[in-house]
Amino acid sequence: MNIVILGGGAAGATAAQFARKEDRKAEITVFEASEYPQYSRCGLPYALSGAIPEFESLIEFSAEWFKRNKIDLRLSTEVLKVEPDTNTISFRGIDGDGKLQYDSLIFATGARPSIPGIKGIAEGDAKKKGVFVFRGMDDAKSLKEWCGEKERKVLIVGAGLVGIEVAEALHIMGHEVAIVEFLDSILPGMIDPDTAAPLLDKMSSLGISARTRALVEEIFGDGSVAGAVVKDRDTGPEERIECDTVILATGQKPSTSLAKDAGCALGRHGHIRVDERCESSVPGIYAVGDCAEYLDFVTGAESPSGMGTTAVKMGEVAGINAAGGSFALPRGFLNSRVSRLFGLEISAVGPISSSLTEAGIAQVQARVKGSTLPVYYPGGKDIMVKLTASKEDGKILACQIVGEEGAGLRVNLAAAMILAGFTARELALFETTYAPPVAPTVDVLATAAEAIMIKLRRSGKSG
Amino acid sequence: MNIVILGGGAAGATAAQFARKEDRKAEITVFEASEYPQYSRCGLPYALSGAIPEFESLIEFSAEWFKRNKIDLRLSTEVLKVEPDTNTISFRGIDGDGKLQYDSLIFATGARPSIPGIKGIAEGDAKKKGVFVFRGMDDAKSLKEWCGEKERKVLIVGAGLVGIEVAEALHIMGHEVAIVEFLDSILPGMIDPDTAAPLLDKMSSLGISARTRALVEEIFGDGSVAGAVVKDRDTGPEERIECDTVILATGQKPSTSLAKDAGCALGRHGHIRVDERCESSVPGIYAVGDCAEYLDFVTGAESPSGMGTTAVKMGEVAGINAAGGSFALPRGFLNSRVSRLFGLEISAVGPISSSLTEAGIAQVQARVKGSTLPVYYPGGKDIMVKLTASKEDGKILACQIVGEEGAGLRVNLAAAMILAGFTARELALFETTYAPPVAPTVDVLATAAEAIMIKLRRSGKSG
Repeated sequence: MNIVILGGGAAGATAAQFARKEDRKAEITVFEASEYPQYSRCGLPYALSGAIPEFESLIEFSAEWFKRNKIDLRLSTEVLKVEPDTNTISFRGIDGDGKLQYDSLIFATGARPSIPGIKGIAEGDAKKKGVFVFRGMDDAKSLKEWCGEKERKVLIVGAGLVGIEVAEALHIMGHEVAIVEFLDSILPGMIDPDTAAPLLDKMSSLGISARTRALVEEIFGDGSVAGAVVKDRDTGPEERIECDTVILATGQKPSTSLAKDAGCALGRHGHIRVDERCESSVPGIYAVGDCAEYLDFVTGAESPSGMGTTAVKMGEVAGINAAGGSFALPRGFLNSRVSRLFGLEISAVGPISSSLTEAGIAQVQARVKGSTLPVYYPGGKDIMVKLTASKEDGKILACQIVGEEGAGLRVNLAAAMILAGFTARELALFETTYAPPVAPTVDVLATAAEAIMIKLRRSGKSG
Repeated sequence: MNIVILGGGAAGATAAQFARKEDRKAEITVFEASEYPQYSRCGLPYALSGAIPEFESLIEFSAEWFKRNKIDLRLSTEVLKVEPDTNTISFRGIDGDGKLQYDSLIFATGARPSIPGIKGIAEGDAKKKGVFVFRGMDDAKSLKEWCGEKERKVLIVGAGLVGIEVAEALHIMGHEVAIVEFLDSILPGMIDPDTAAPLLDKMSSLGISARTRALVEEIFGDGSVAGAVVKDRDTGPEERIECDTVILATGQKPSTSLAKDAGCALGRHGHIRVDERCESSVPGIYAVGDCAEYLDFVTGAESPSGMGTTAVKMGEVAGINAAGGSFALPRGFLNSRVSRLFGLEISAVGPISSSLTEAGIAQVQARVKGSTLPVYYPGGKDIMVKLTASKEDGKILACQIVGEEGAGLRVNLAAAMILAGFTARELALFETTYAPPVAPTVDVLATAAEAIMIKLRRSGKSG
């Protein structure tokens, strides 16, 4: 059994790990275009800020790990072609070109930063000096080196998770940070605008400006960034912002050209479409992580993976199946997500409100504020829950939580409720652990569920 | 509609609260034998230690709250008789005797400490001076007063949750504490011996001795406690322990005499047996909290409520049903439980291992140690998970977690898995939230689930 994996990131390395667990004797080869064995991309902002002292400590599956597990890791090696007719790949490495036969192949080719067409962004073929993207180890290292001991004035384009995490890192490092976001709110794909409000307040109190519904029209400066022209999408006026650094955090494009050429069908968002076994439309070829597209559990719509969490799950499933085992994802991704930003833990599961509306799903929502501890016990922290249930049948569809702590672990519970098809009524009666120094008798999630039941009852539905 | 509730503790007050929400016009009367409106009994050890500065801050449903909600709270009033033939109760209060008609009645009469038959425990009809129980507000206040500014030598009989929580409080207060437990391990009803081991180590390092498989044969001292004779159940020798205070934490007996006289059937453990609507065998009479007995979700066996968590859920269900609404518990209790003891958060859900064995359920168990954060992120805390699944079908049955933090919230996720009937395989693939400063990509719960899958596979079953 020959298993070939294209890409040695979180998804690819996990696939290799589980393929090895499934078949102790298979030949497993991982091709990785960069010089790095698998490292945590999610950890990069924290290595940038210094919270993690060394970039190298982000390496989780080291070259030694691959060796120990008898997995052939080919670094700095580019795969040029995948030919499913002959089950052959062609590659180009440091030692020249080569070909390899495979029985199963896994695309874990990831994605590359999406570069918006902004005037002045490039000088010739290269990015203008002072313009950065933030996806891989080298991007983060270059940015850290550029910042050096200087006090930079940074404009971040895009207020998604990467944009805000990098903003926090740079703020901690002492740089001046401004953010421009094209959409209505910060973290637009992750949480609803009302859930984002406390974070926006916190950032504003720290002197970090975030312009929403705005776009960068031009990056100016001779040879190096000197500033940007930002336009308000509604009112129209242009504003000149002085800055010496621009970070493009405007999303990513899946790396799919090899897969396309190999005949793999792409999904609605242009990623490699896979089934619950993580298999593409070409039998024996799997796809995992940022290059792949599966389904959203709640809406059933095609949905890119895009997160470390889902990448790892896909890696596990594809690795086992590619090695001849049998493992399947649930019927869609819950997309559980969390970050800790400027002292707030922000977490969510299920589609954001506008995606549910888009999918034609009638919602009932409750927003409640509670505490992590009983009122009588000192030290409880405020925690805000926005819970969404189906107006039709009361089933939990989504949950967003913000607090100083405990948001992510509470979202895990909401995620299990969604996966199980439980209703607000079942959540209201759910036995959460209680002890005065740990948690209140009625968790804020149950309070939110009760609020939803009342709303459902008023609208003539049972929760 | 006349609703009468006997007992104004957590279960009774919650029943009153939800009866009021269900029917804005019902007459609701709560009879409470003590002088206190509802307070948190679970909070008493923390008011004893001083973590909560005032006993009075434990009051959650104040007299004013009852007034505001137009609920007639009769404190220091004893109910003498319940007559279901005529739907009448007789009571004796400060202002004399009376009778009241009801349409629905809820027993929330709680329990009283179970006093073991130890030689020398009493002087005449009263407990010997220096002997205490620890259930209600007055018990806690008396103990605090007895300790005063002195340095007491305390022997605690019983290493259940109350015993250990009081041991911690007294240790914080500077008293010398020893514990004697009849059974094999500390927290015997809550967690398995191997889960209790880290706590036992911690206590031992703090100078708190815990003798297991031992019993107190005699409490000696003339007029006041001077010591106790403790016998090892296996090896037999008796040991004289010097102490000036003995605390009996040997469990509780449900207060059921009125219910028995009213014809309510009792369960296997002698509590009032209720169905999923919290209704007793007598129509229109409900029972909730420590006096009631429902089913265990996993084994289906009759199981006393016994915890604040389940008391409150029963109160909610009974209150709504007593007021003419319709609400039902799941088919049994999960018994999610947690405490924070000597810096360790200890949490569990589902039956302990010996109860599963007793119920004839074949188990597969995995014990794994993980961290609350990814290895590369500083500050992660060790966390130990013991996960139990059915050997037949891989379904999650129980989970016990010990760590410095995050045990209780993780147990909530395991509890949802049990309630949903999910298998180890489903838990292994479950998307838990991940971000470097919050949680690792693969939560320790998922790692435990993977370990179970491997064991199931080895035994020829699928996870």
